[in-house]
Amino acid sequence: MDKLKKILEDIESKKLNVDEGMQHLKKYLYTDLGYAKIDNIREARVGYPEVIFGLGKTKEQITGIVDHMYEHGTNILITRTHQEVYDSIQKKYKEAKYNQAGCIITIQRKPIEKTQSYIAIVAAGTSDLPVIEEAYETASFFGNRVEKVTDVGVAGIHRLLDKINILREAKVLIVIAGMEGALPSVIGGLVNKPIIAVPTSIGYGANFGGLSALLAMLNSCSGGISVVNIDNGFGAAYQASMINKL
Amino acid sequence: MDKLKKILEDIESKKLNVDEGMQHLKKYLYTDLGYAKIDNIREARVGYPEVIFGLGKTKEQITGIVDHMYEHGTNILITRTHQEVYDSIQKKYKEAKYNQAGCIITIQRKPIEKTQSYIAIVAAGTSDLPVIEEAYETASFFGNRVEKVTDVGVAGIHRLLDKINILREAKVLIVIAGMEGALPSVIGGLVNKPIIAVPTSIGYGANFGGLSALLAMLNSCSGGISVVNIDNGFGAAYQASMINKL
Amino acid sequence: MDKLKKILEDIESKKLNVDEGMQHLKKYLYTDLGYAKIDNIREARVGYPEVIFGLGKTKEQITGIVDHMYEHGTNILITRTHQEVYDSIQKKYKEAKYNQAGCIITIQRKPIEKTQSYIAIVAAGTSDLPVIEEAYETASFFGNRVEKVTDVGVAGIHRLLDKINILREAKVLIVIAGMEGALPSVIGGLVNKPIIAVPTSIGYGANFGGLSALLAMLNSCSGGISVVNIDNGFGAAYQASMINKL
Amino acid sequence: MDKLKKILEDIESKKLNVDEGMQHLKKYLYTDLGYAKIDNIREARVGYPEVIFGLGKTKEQITGIVDHMYEHGTNILITRTHQEVYDSIQKKYKEAKYNQAGCIITIQRKPIEKTQSYIAIVAAGTSDLPVIEEAYETASFFGNRVEKVTDVGVAGIHRLLDKINILREAKVLIVIAGMEGALPSVIGGLVNKPIIAVPTSIGYGANFGGLSALLAMLNSCSGGISVVNIDNGFGAAYQASMINKL
Amino acid sequence: MDKLKKILEDIESKKLNVDEGMQHLKKYLYTDLGYAKIDNIREARVGYPEVIFGLGKTKEQITGIVDHMYEHGTNILITRTHQEVYDSIQKKYKEAKYNQAGCIITIQRKPIEKTQSYIAIVAAGTSDLPVIEEAYETASFFGNRVEKVTDVGVAGIHRLLDKINILREAKVLIVIAGMEGALPSVIGGLVNKPIIAVPTSIGYGANFGGLSALLAMLNSCSGGISVVNIDNGFGAAYQASMINKL
Amino acid sequence: MDKLKKILEDIESKKLNVDEGMQHLKKYLYTDLGYAKIDNIREARVGYPEVIFGLGKTKEQITGIVDHMYEHGTNILITRTHQEVYDSIQKKYKEAKYNQAGCIITIQRKPIEKTQSYIAIVAAGTSDLPVIEEAYETASFFGNRVEKVTDVGVAGIHRLLDKINILREAKVLIVIAGMEGALPSVIGGLVNKPIIAVPTSIGYGANFGGLSALLAMLNSCSGGISVVNIDNGFGAAYQASMINKL
Amino acid sequence: MDKLKKILEDIESKKLNVDEGMQHLKKYLYTDLGYAKIDNIREARVGYPEVIFGLGKTKEQITGIVDHMYEHGTNILITRTHQEVYDSIQKKYKEAKYNQAGCIITIQRKPIEKTQSYIAIVAAGTSDLPVIEEAYETASFFGNRVEKVTDVGVAGIHRLLDKINILREAKVLIVIAGMEGALPSVIGGLVNKPIIAVPTSIGYGANFGGLSALLAMLNSCSGGISVVNIDNGFGAAYQASMINKL
Amino acid sequence: MDKLKKILEDIESKKLNVDEGMQHLKKYLYTDLGYAKIDNIREARVGYPEVIFGLGKTKEQITGIVDHMYEHGTNILITRTHQEVYDSIQKKYKEAKYNQAGCIITIQRKPIEKTQSYIAIVAAGTSDLPVIEEAYETASFFGNRVEKVTDVGVAGIHRLLDKINILREAKVLIVIAGMEGALPSVIGGLVNKPIIAVPTSIGYGANFGGLSALLAMLNSCSGGISVVNIDNGFGAAYQASMINKL
Repeated sequence: MDKLKKILEDIESKKLNVDEGMQHLKKYLYTDLGYAKIDNIREARVGYPEVIFGLGKTKEQITGIVDHMYEHGTNILITRTHQEVYDSIQKKYKEAKYNQAGCIITIQRKPIEKTQSYIAIVAAGTSDLPVIEEAYETASFFGNRVEKVTDVGVAGIHRLLDKINILREAKVLIVIAGMEGALPSVIGGLVNKPIIAVPTSIGYGANFGGLSALLAMLNSCSGGISVVNIDNGFGAAYQASMINKL
Repeated sequence: MDKLKKILEDIESKKLNVDEGMQHLKKYLYTDLGYAKIDNIREARVGYPEVIFGLGKTKEQITGIVDHMYEHGTNILITRTHQEVYDSIQKKYKEAKYNQAGCIITIQRKPIEKTQSYIAIVAAGTSDLPVIEEAYETASFFGNRVEKVTDVGVAGIHRLLDKINILREAKVLIVIAGMEGALPSVIGGLVNKPIIAVPTSIGYGANFGGLSALLAMLNSCSGGISVVNIDNGFGAAYQASMINKL
Repeated sequence: MDKLKKILEDIESKKLNVDEGMQHLKKYLYTDLGYAKIDNIREARVGYPEVIFGLGKTKEQITGIVDHMYEHGTNILITRTHQEVYDSIQKKYKEAKYNQAGCIITIQRKPIEKTQSYIAIVAAGTSDLPVIEEAYETASFFGNRVEKVTDVGVAGIHRLLDKINILREAKVLIVIAGMEGALPSVIGGLVNKPIIAVPTSIGYGANFGGLSALLAMLNSCSGGISVVNIDNGFGAAYQASMINKL
Repeated sequence: MDKLKKILEDIESKKLNVDEGMQHLKKYLYTDLGYAKIDNIREARVGYPEVIFGLGKTKEQITGIVDHMYEHGTNILITRTHQEVYDSIQKKYKEAKYNQAGCIITIQRKPIEKTQSYIAIVAAGTSDLPVIEEAYETASFFGNRVEKVTDVGVAGIHRLLDKINILREAKVLIVIAGMEGALPSVIGGLVNKPIIAVPTSIGYGANFGGLSALLAMLNSCSGGISVVNIDNGFGAAYQASMINKL
Repeated sequence: MDKLKKILEDIESKKLNVDEGMQHLKKYLYTDLGYAKIDNIREARVGYPEVIFGLGKTKEQITGIVDHMYEHGTNILITRTHQEVYDSIQKKYKEAKYNQAGCIITIQRKPIEKTQSYIAIVAAGTSDLPVIEEAYETASFFGNRVEKVTDVGVAGIHRLLDKINILREAKVLIVIAGMEGALPSVIGGLVNKPIIAVPTSIGYGANFGGLSALLAMLNSCSGGISVVNIDNGFGAAYQASMINKL
Repeated sequence: MDKLKKILEDIESKKLNVDEGMQHLKKYLYTDLGYAKIDNIREARVGYPEVIFGLGKTKEQITGIVDHMYEHGTNILITRTHQEVYDSIQKKYKEAKYNQAGCIITIQRKPIEKTQSYIAIVAAGTSDLPVIEEAYETASFFGNRVEKVTDVGVAGIHRLLDKINILREAKVLIVIAGMEGALPSVIGGLVNKPIIAVPTSIGYGANFGGLSALLAMLNSCSGGISVVNIDNGFGAAYQASMINKL
Repeated sequence: MDKLKKILEDIESKKLNVDEGMQHLKKYLYTDLGYAKIDNIREARVGYPEVIFGLGKTKEQITGIVDHMYEHGTNILITRTHQEVYDSIQKKYKEAKYNQAGCIITIQRKPIEKTQSYIAIVAAGTSDLPVIEEAYETASFFGNRVEKVTDVGVAGIHRLLDKINILREAKVLIVIAGMEGALPSVIGGLVNKPIIAVPTSIGYGANFGGLSALLAMLNSCSGGISVVNIDNGFGAAYQASMINKL
Repeated sequence: MDKLKKILEDIESKKLNVDEGMQHLKKYLYTDLGYAKIDNIREARVGYPEVIFGLGKTKEQITGIVDHMYEHGTNILITRTHQEVYDSIQKKYKEAKYNQAGCIITIQRKPIEKTQSYIAIVAAGTSDLPVIEEAYETASFFGNRVEKVTDVGVAGIHRLLDKINILREAKVLIVIAGMEGALPSVIGGLVNKPIIAVPTSIGYGANFGGLSALLAMLNSCSGGISVVNIDNGFGAAYQASMINKL
C-alpha cells in the first residue's frame, strides 16, 4: 500500500501528472488475461500469492494462468483439479507435482521456508483423505510445518487420547470430520488452541452432503472453534497458516 | 389376542352366533368418548397402558379421558401438559403428582414394581432438563429402575469418564443432547449396550430447533445407536423400558 | 478394561515403571496402519469386532485392513463395498463371500454361534432389498437368528396381518420402509417389542432421498420405535443384535 | 359464460355498440369495494359462492365484505377467523353461527339442500380437531351429507377396522392426520374411493410444522390419494364436495 | 369382503373347522413369490388390479411378477421401467407395448371398456411429456376416455383460453406443470370440476427438483385442487379414474 | 465522484497537501453518530437519499438519525417501524406522517416532483396490504406517479383482464403475491414491460413463510420478471423508481 | 391487440359473423405443432419473439419448432441446448451459430439493430462463464449493446473499482456471482442504475447448488437490486433488454 | 495435566494406593451441584474459566453456579441472560455489571490484564448491536484490547475503506454481518489477518433467521475466513482471544 502513497506523492511532486498517475495505478494492480485478472499485488496485500481454484475452469484457462505466473517466478498452487490438467502441465513444467488424493498440483519455483511452530491436522476417518491432503498440501505450500493425526474418530476415544500431546503442542489445529462431526467438540474440550473445523461430505442418507457435520460444528458446545465450508481443506489451511505465522 | 381366538371358537361351538360375535369384538376393543377412543386392550396388546399425550388437547378432553381411565383403576400418565391442567385434575384426584420441569402428571392407582436392571439417562447439559424429566418420569411410571447422569457434555470429557461405570452397568441407555449432539457418539464408543439418543431443541441459530443434534445422532459413527424425535423423552423411555424388561 | 487396572497395579508393584506403563498402554490399544488405526480392543470394549465401512475407502486401503485382521483370525465384515473390491479380495481369501444385493463381503474365520431368540426383519417393498440384505448379513454375522418378512407394505394390510405371529415372537424388530414410511407405526400398534425403524431412499420426487420416510418414522404416533439413518441396515442390525443378546 | 356470448351477439345485432359491450362486461363480473373485488359470477362460473378467507384481513374488511354479500342474499362462510370478528358480526346478523374449534363463521340466508351420498371425514387424533371442524363446516355449508370418524390413528389399527364400513360406503373420503401421516396410506389399501389427504401441523420437533405428514402423504404407496396444504380442511372439503356432487 | 363373512359362516356351519378357516383365509389373499407378494384380491378390494412399479426392481423380479399375472389373465401395467425391461418382456409376450416417453409397458389380455365421460390431461409445456404420457397410459389402461391439452402454460394465457371448453366438459382434470406450477391455479378459477395437480421436476436452479411447483400447487388460491407427488402421473391418473367412474 | 477527482487536482496544484487531502476525503463522505454512520453522499452517488430501515433499531437510535437528517433538510423515510416510534417522532416533527398498514413514516421537507410515466403496483389479494403500502409509500416518496391495482389474483382471471390497460401503460410493474405466487407469471405473458415480483409471506402451512411464492416467482416461465426478498415492498419500489426515471 | 378490436369491429360491421370471428381469433393466435403451440403473436404482444428453451426437449422437437419459425423468417434463439442439437441444425441451416460456453444456438434471418445505451454484464469469476455467455448472447440477440466486465469478485475490490466507469455509464447492469454472491451488494452501493442479480451454482459444499448466492442476493443491503433464478442468464438479459430499451 | 502424572507417580512411590489415587482424581476434576457439574480445571486445561451460558437455565440454577464460582474467587461471565437474572444477582453481588444490549452479566473479582495487540470487531449495521456487544464484553473479559468499527456495510464501501487502517493493524478480526453477509468477503480481500465471521439473524423473509448470511460466509471467495454460529458473538470472541494471545 506504500506504493499507493508513493503515487500520490509523485503527483504532488509533479513527477507524474494526474493521467499518468491513473495509468500507473492500473498497471500496478493486476494483469488482465481476458478470461481472468491476475492479482499481482495479492502477496503484498494479503501475504499470500494468488491460488488457482481449478473447479469450473477449463484446462486452457488454467494453463494460461500458470504460464503467466510461471514467468513471474512465483510458486504455483492449483486446487480442485484432476489428472488430465496435471498431465498437460507436467509436459511443460517438469517440476510440477500432483497430490492425487488431494487433487492439488504444486509448482515450486523458489524455496519455501518452514515455520518452527506447527499446524496439527486431525481427522476422524480414513475416508476423509481428500480433505486432509488438500489441507496438508496447502499448509505446506504456505511454509508451515504440519503434523497429521488421522483416523481418530470419537467412536474410539482412546485413539485420540493417545495422540493428545501432538494436538496440545500445535499452535493451531485443523480438525476434519464427516458424519456426526463430533471430533472438534471433543478436542475443543482437551486443548487450549484455536481450532478450525472442516466438515466433510463423507457419509450417506441424512448427512445431506455434509450438512450434518456442518451444523454439528457450528453448534459445538466447546469454545475456540470456528468452521469453514464443507470439504474446504484449502480454506482451513489458509487461515491456519495466517494464525501459525502470527 | 387369545380373546379373539376364543370368539372364533365360541362361534364354532355355537355359544355365539355371527352377529353376537361381531358385537363382542367391538366392545372388547375400546371405549368411544366421542372426541377420543380409549384403547382398552393396549396393555394386553403392546404391554403398556395408553398414555395421554397432552399437546393440542383441551383441559376438558384430558379430564374426560382421565375420568374414564380412573374408573378402570389403571395408572395414568399425562405428558406435554401444563400447570392449569394439573390444577384442575389435582382438585378431583388428590394423588395426582406434577413434575413441573418435565410437564408430566402421574396418577398412581396401583403399585408399580421396579426392575432390577436399570436404564441410565445421560444428558449433556443443565438446559436439557425438561427432556430428562420427561424420560425419567415415563421410565419410572413403566416400572423401571433409573439412574440419571447429567451435565456430562463432550466439552469436558473427564466428567463423563468419571461416571463411566454407571453407564456400563446399565441394561440400556437414554442419551440426551442438544447443540452438536455428540454425546451418544462418544458414549457409543465406550459402552456395549443399546443407546437411544434424544436430540433436544436446546441451542440457537444454526441448530434450527434441534435439527443439528438430530442429524448428528442419525449420522453417528458409533454403533448401537438409534434416535427418537427431537425432545421426545417419552418415546425414548418407552422403548428403553421395552428393552430393559426383555 | 481390567487390563487397564492391571497396568496401574503393575506400576504400583514396580513390575512396570511409569514409562513402560505408558508404552504398554499404547500397544494394547490399536495397530496403526498409517492410513487407518485398527481398534484391537473393540470386541472387548463394546462386544463386537471392528467392521470395515467400505464407502470412500480405496481398494488398497480395504485390502490392507483385511490383511491385518485376517492375520489376527477375526471374522471380517465389509459393508458398502462393490464387485471390484470383492474380486480382489476373493483371489487371496477363497472363503470370502459376497452378498451382491446388500453390497457386503464376509470372511468367516471362526464359527458363529447363533442365538435362540430371533430378530425379525420386516420390509415394506421389494425395492428395499439392498437395505434388507445389509441388515440380514450384519445380524447373521453378529450371531443372531433372523427371520425375514418382506413386501408387507401398508397399502395391503392383510399381507402384514397374516405374518403377525412371526413379528410378535421376535425379541426385537427391524422395520424397513421407504416412501411414506408408515410400516413401523402400524407394526408398533400390533406388537410389544422394540422396533428399530430404517427409512430407505426408495421413491422419487418429494421423498427427497428418504427424508419423507425418515420424518414419518421420527414422528410415529406408536410407541417403542427408534430410528437409524436412511438406508442404514447395518446400524439397525448392530443395535438389534445388542438387544437380542441381552 | 353464455352471457359472454350473448354480449357478442348483442354487438352483432347492434343492440350494443362496442363501447357499451365493454361496459356490460365489466359490471357483469365483480363489485369493487376498493380493498377487495367481490367475484359476482363465481357461483355461476365454478359452482360455489366466494368464501371469505379471514387470515390477514382486518375486522373492518371482513365486515364490509359480509355486508355486501348479505345484501345479495347469498349464504356466507368465513374461514380462519376468530372470536372478536364473530362478536362484531353477530351483533349485526343474529343468525351468524361460530364453530369455535374450526374458527369458522357461517350465515345461512337460504336453505341448503343436502346430498344423498356422503363425504367421510376420518381423522387420526383428538388433537386434529380444528382441521376436522373446518372441513366439516365447509362440506356441510356446500350441501353435503358428512360422516365423521375420529381418533382412529394407525397405532391402534383395530379402531379403524371397526369403522371400515362407514369408510367404504362414502363417495369420497377426507383423511386427516398429523405426525407421521400414515392414515391415508392404510385407508387407501382398504377402500376403493378417492381420498383427499390433509396433513396437520400437530406434533413437535422433526414434524417441522406439518412437513412430516405432508411428505408422507405425497409419497403414499397406496393409490387414489391426493393431498392439500397443511391444515387445509377447507380446501379438502371444497374438492370433496365437487366430487361428491358428480 | 363377502368372502370373509362366508368363511365365518362356513365355520359356524361346521363346513370348515377353525384351522381350515385360517388356511382358506391365507390362500385367498395373495401369492407369495418370495421377493414379492402379489395381491390377488386388490381388484376386488379397491377396484383396480395391482400395478407393477418398476423403479428399484430388477429385470428378473419384474419378469417373475409378469409371468404370474399373465397366467391369471389380468391386464398388466408396468410403470417407471425402461427399454431393456421391455425388450426382455416383448420377446415372451408379443402383445406387450411400450410408451417410451412415459416409460410404461402395457400387456392387454382382455378388452378394456372405455367411459363416456372423460378425464382432461392438461400440461404447461412440451418438456412435461414423460409425466403426460404416464398419466395418459394409466388412465387409458383403467378404462377412461382421455383428452390431452398440452403446451398451454400461463405465459401465453390465450392458448389456454382457446381450449377452455375441452377443460370445462371434462368430469375431472389432471393438470401438469413444472417451474412455477401456476397452471392449476389459473384453471381452478375457470372450471368447476375437481383438479388433480401434478408438479413436475422440469426446470433448474431454484426449482429444487420440482419443489417450486409442488409448493405453488399446495398453496393455490383457487379451490378444488389437490396435489400428488412430483412427476407422479400414475397417481394422478389413478385417482382421476376413481372420480371419473363415480 | 467529481469531487474525488477535484481533491486529486487540488493536491496536484498544491492547494492541498497530502494530509489535508486525506482529511477532506473523510469529512466529505459521512457523518459518524457513533452507533450509525450517515452516508452524506448517497444521493449524489446512487441518486437517492439514505433511508432508515427501522427493524432492529431502538427508538432512540431512529430519533437520533432523524434529528441529523432533519437538520440537513432532506426528506426522510423510515420503513419497518411502528406506532410507538411514530408517536415519539410526531411530537417533535409535526409534519411526520404514518402509513399504518405499510409501517412507514415520512417527513417531507422539500417538494417531491412526480414523474409523468407511472409504476403500476398490482397485488393478488387483500391480505397483501402491508407490502402494497410499503411499496406505494416508497415509490411516491422517490417521486414516482403510482397506480394501484389490487385483489386481482389468478383464481379469478377476469378481474385481472379487466384492468389490463392500466398494466400495459405502466413503464414498470411491481407485482405482489403470496400463496402460489402465480400472478407475475400470468401478467408477464400479457405485458411487455419489466416486472419486479414481490413474494409475500401471506398464507399458512406449506407456504413456509413466503417460500412457496418466492420459488414460484424465481421459476416463472414468463420473461421479464425479476424478484426481490419476501415482503420487500421497499426494495421493489426502489428499483422500480430507478427504472421509471430512466 | 388492435387486431382483436378489429375482429370485434368486423363482427359489428357484419364483415364477419360470430363463428367466423371465432375462427379468425384462433388462427391469429398460434400454430399448433401437436407437441408444441408456437406463439405467433408473442413479438406483437410482449415485444420479443418466442425463444426455444432447449432443456427437456428432444432434438426432433427442437428441429420441428426451428423449421416452423425459419419459414416465418424470424430470428431464432435456442437456449440450454448442446452440441448434438447444433450439429443437426447446422446441417440444414448453415447460418446457425453456436456459443459453446453459453450453450446457445442463434440463427439470424434479419438484421438486428443495436441500441445506443448499453447493458453491462459484470461477473465475479472466470468459472461463471456459461452464465455470462448465456446472458451475453441473449442480450445481443435482442438488439442491445453489451459491455462485459469479468473476474472482478469482491475478494480483490480494486479490480472492480478500476472498471467502475463502465458500470456507471451503463443503463442497466446484470451482475453475476456464485459462492457468497456479494458482488451485486457492493456494486449496488457504487452505481445508481438498476441491477439484475444472477446467482450461479458455482461452488461446492454449503453453496447447495447456488442457494448461498441466491439468498445473499435476495437479502442484499443495497438498493436497486432484483434477482432471477440460479444460472438464469437468459432471464436476466431478457429483463435487462426491456429496461435498456425504455 | 501434570497433576495427573503426579498421581501416577504417587502411586508408584506408594504415597497413594490405587483406591486413594482414584479418589484424588475425581475430586480434582469438578464440583457436582446436582443440576450442574462445575469444571474446576477448565482454566488450567483450556486456558479460560468456565462461562455460564444463560439460555435455558433457570434463575435459581444460574445463581447457584455463581455462588459456587464466587467463593472460588474467579471472574464470572454470564451470557444470553436477561434483566431479571441480573436484578437477582446484583442484589447479592454489588460489583455485578450488566451490558443490556449484549445480554451479558460480568462480575470481576480479580484484575484483568489487557493485551497490547488488539482484536478488531467490525460490524455491518446498527442492528447488529446485540452481537457486537456480546463479542465485545467477552473479548474484554478474557483480557483483550478491542477496537470497534460499526455500521460499515458493503452498500457504502467508502465508509469501510476509511477505517481500513484500524482493521489492518489488528491481530485478528471479528466481522459481524446479517442479511447478505458480504462484509467478511470484502474485508478478506483487504487485510492479511485471520477473520472470524459471525452471521447475524438480522433481516427478514428469505434470510431465514440468519441462514443467508451464514451460507454467504461459508462460501466466501476470500481466504482467511472461518465462521461461527449465527449470532454467536461469544464464540467468535473466545476464539479471537485465543489467537490474539498467541
